[in-house]
Amino acid sequence: MDKIEHIGIAVKNISEANKVYTRLLGYEHYKTENVEREGVTTSFFKCGESKIELLEATNPDSPIAKFIEKKGEGIHHIAFSVKNIEKEIERLKQEGFTVINEAPKKGADNKLVVFLHPKSTNGVLIELCQEME
Amino acid sequence: MDKIEHIGIAVKNISEANKVYTRLLGYEHYKTENVEREGVTTSFFKCGESKIELLEATNPDSPIAKFIEKKGEGIHHIAFSVKNIEKEIERLKQEGFTVINEAPKKGADNKLVVFLHPKSTNGVLIELCQEME
Repeated sequence: MDKIEHIGIAVKNISEANKVYTRLLGYEHYKTENVEREGVTTSFFKCGESKIELLEATNPDSPIAKFIEKKGEGIHHIAFSVKNIEKEIERLKQEGFTVINEAPKKGADNKLVVFLHPKSTNGVLIELCQEME
Repeated sequence: MDKIEHIGIAVKNISEANKVYTRLLGYEHYKTENVEREGVTTSFFKCGESKIELLEATNPDSPIAKFIEKKGEGIHHIAFSVKNIEKEIERLKQEGFTVINEAPKKGADNKLVVFLHPKSTNGVLIELCQEME
């Protein structure tokens, strides 16, 4: 785990939330991206070596729609960047963590990603991500 | 907002959670600290330029105890580091954010801190912190 790559925040309306986080951080998001497979639209703000990722559901079955329905808007996950995601998955499984998707999948921002189940990490949904070549 | 200073995670048992996060990150926390005024014990793990802060309540009136009672263990807040906290408070009030404590207070890790109310930041409890001289 090299650094906190980003913090994902579930929001109801990403264009409204973009305005809020622009006022908060004092600068605008640098990109938006639609991840169809996950049913989300995302926007990214740089912050030091990390990013803030806002996530809005694009359909009612999206994990973000379900999260907001259950818990309301708020922090959805923390993502750590790793150099070798396959190796980290192996290591973490051996350490007893529950990997949600064992095969890394393509996420936003040109990354391969896996998620660890919050039950094994004190209620925190953790994403590992590796930059794709 | 220079960087993400830390992510605060509310846990029921900090010595158990220290073990989990040591296995997750692959290294140990570098310090623990009791913040009596806030009714919390904390431990810190470095992660790039940021930190992970685990928080356990030391009494039932602690904000961390109330958070866990209501939402369970999980991410409690994001802290951004700022150079001049008084100036940032002024700026954010003018931008329409709700500052919980207008006078910065002494937090863990030698910091002056203020919190923004989650109702003005899409459900995210945000801390601003400035290193004390």
